[in-house]
Amino acid sequence: MLVPFNTEDSRLNKVPKHRPRNVLILGSTGSIGISALEIIEKNRDLFSPFGLIAGTNSVELNNQIQKYSPKFAGLSDIYKSKDLKIENGSIVSGVSEICKLCAHPDVDIVLATIVGMAGIESVFAAATAGKVIALANKESLVSGGELLKKEIEKSNSVILPVDSEHSAIFQALQGENPNQIKKLILTASGGPFFTRSRADLKGITPEEAIKHPRWNMGRKISVDSATMMNKALELIEAHWLFNVDSEKIEVVVHPQSIIHSSVEFEDGSQIAQLSNPDMKGPISYALNYPRGRVVGAVKSLDLGALGRIDFVNLDQNRFPAVKMAKSVLRQGGSASAVMNSANEAAVALFLDRKLDFDCIESVVDQSIEKFASEKVINLADLIELDKRVKNNIYEENV
Amino acid sequence: MLVPFNTEDSRLNKVPKHRPRNVLILGSTGSIGISALEIIEKNRDLFSPFGLIAGTNSVELNNQIQKYSPKFAGLSDIYKSKDLKIENGSIVSGVSEICKLCAHPDVDIVLATIVGMAGIESVFAAATAGKVIALANKESLVSGGELLKKEIEKSNSVILPVDSEHSAIFQALQGENPNQIKKLILTASGGPFFTRSRADLKGITPEEAIKHPRWNMGRKISVDSATMMNKALELIEAHWLFNVDSEKIEVVVHPQSIIHSSVEFEDGSQIAQLSNPDMKGPISYALNYPRGRVVGAVKSLDLGALGRIDFVNLDQNRFPAVKMAKSVLRQGGSASAVMNSANEAAVALFLDRKLDFDCIESVVDQSIEKFASEKVINLADLIELDKRVKNNIYEENV
Repeated sequence: MLVPFNTEDSRLNKVPKHRPRNVLILGSTGSIGISALEIIEKNRDLFSPFGLIAGTNSVELNNQIQKYSPKFAGLSDIYKSKDLKIENGSIVSGVSEICKLCAHPDVDIVLATIVGMAGIESVFAAATAGKVIALANKESLVSGGELLKKEIEKSNSVILPVDSEHSAIFQALQGENPNQIKKLILTASGGPFFTRSRADLKGITPEEAIKHPRWNMGRKISVDSATMMNKALELIEAHWLFNVDSEKIEVVVHPQSIIHSSVEFEDGSQIAQLSNPDMKGPISYALNYPRGRVVGAVKSLDLGALGRIDFVNLDQNRFPAVKMAKSVLRQGGSASAVMNSANEAAVALFLDRKLDFDCIESVVDQSIEKFASEKVINLADLIELDKRVKNNIYEENV
Repeated sequence: MLVPFNTEDSRLNKVPKHRPRNVLILGSTGSIGISALEIIEKNRDLFSPFGLIAGTNSVELNNQIQKYSPKFAGLSDIYKSKDLKIENGSIVSGVSEICKLCAHPDVDIVLATIVGMAGIESVFAAATAGKVIALANKESLVSGGELLKKEIEKSNSVILPVDSEHSAIFQALQGENPNQIKKLILTASGGPFFTRSRADLKGITPEEAIKHPRWNMGRKISVDSATMMNKALELIEAHWLFNVDSEKIEVVVHPQSIIHSSVEFEDGSQIAQLSNPDMKGPISYALNYPRGRVVGAVKSLDLGALGRIDFVNLDQNRFPAVKMAKSVLRQGGSASAVMNSANEAAVALFLDRKLDFDCIESVVDQSIEKFASEKVINLADLIELDKRVKNNIYEENV
């Protein structure tokens, strides 16, 4: 398993037990980065903001530098990096310097939360350096699962999941024997259009699609949630994280997002993790693992006040993405990487009003057919393939 | 804690890891005993039916002897014991011989499932002998919590919970730090009269009261479920088992009995155990702990097919039993024992059509006021007090 087997897993020896952990945040200006910084600030006995990395938003990053005084700060955008101001620390600029920072000996844990393929190089750099990685960038596993697994096994790195679903599964597995897993049950909110038929998806605007009913998230992941592609990516991520066959992973729609996922064991019993939907729960759990739960991370859940929760079996025809995920895992090779890259391109086009919402899945499907046989043997190949898949979609749709 | 801290707890060294466990079932003809025997029969590589003990039902016990060939069989009723027939084994007869059998060196685990105070002496005998006890007899902890705790600590005995709620909490605590418990959430089905007002409880018959909507259980526990006294007893049991203050134990009504209970931790996150309601889950979990879950114990849960689950905050005035439990725990001394004995007497009278259903709680309340100041320093005192409380109720109500 890419996650620790238990709290005694020797791969966790790299994170300190008794002093604040130096956290390097890749994606500090995104919603997960912002939540992570709030947790760090409230728990300085547990965490220290070692490095803050963002993409292009120099204004917000300068604010964060002022507020949190990291030792390092940087942007992947080399041009924008020039606007950064730091007094007692250093600036890094561009992907290659960021990757070098991931390997810095003083980094105890890397919180990888850059969305999409943009985050993959830094995740690989952290893995190669043998770091403990709190992973929110699911695309690196969806796209590079096989490669990343090899890298992690070679370097003795280890992943702590940050996605709420995978964190729930990880929490449910504590104290359990992973060989007794019967199935993983990923819960899905269903997104904003769950009750609409496919015919009713015509003309949906980006503004409608990014209004998620339960979670306050970034634009790309909100669209993925509306197509259920998010759940498809999560299924693939779960497969790699927990070493569970995709046929043993189910998706059930649960609109209230209270049960964040569940594990069924061989005795027919399920262990589930519940909370109010707030990413501070899974973020703090990962950042502090295996030292225990961070006091007050999330507001207490009042089941009586909640009153009711619902579950609906997923209509695989209405939402073909989950079926697609199982199919690309069966195909193996680069099929999963193509699915991820094609989805990123299609979502970008939709947000840019250049593709209809209800065409996203078919664009992804066509790309898989066209590119899935391509050989990928290293990260460079993967990045190259990503570009070709995306360019092909941009050419065909603009 | 009376339960093991974790799978490595040295108190568990007494149960074998690699050979079938010799199980002594106290209460083999009751519903839990019958389920346990089915589990044992299906898993002879894990369990062996060492001894079968019942109360008075010699016919059913003779059938079980024929079918399962235990080494020992017996009834607490000395007179009825004469009807027992065993070929390759021995008969025990009466409480004192049963207590001796509990200490037999070949007994690996005692499943204590005799309902009510009738089971308390054998539970204490198993505790004194330092046995691993799979406990379904909640009354021994409700009535003799303080005494049983001392006995268990002295002998290095340990308890594995069998009640579905306590098993759920125990499962939820696996791999967790018990110092991080914020609260225990006991779920309650609400019983058959949950939607009735107190005014509508007049004239309820025993036949109505023992029709439980979710669980197929014995008569006494079914009535306790209808008054929520069962939940009150469970709250007290949870207090002793997990060493959690009663103010940190909540009850929430959950009519579908799918979430069997939940633990909230300091981060605001809950871990819950879910399954179809079937006592084979908790029984098999306890009997096999810490060797893992028993394959196929319970039918898989299909959340999508289930569709919906509900939670309702408990109306403490409509159901005063839970409030009463917290109050007797605050009082300490013998208050909790009196509550339990009085409830047993009141339920017996109700089942005998000599007491109205809606008078059960007030009878219990009056007994607590009358007897709670009595000193109890050993098991003999407790049994003596039990008789006096019950006789007083019988005298006043017959």
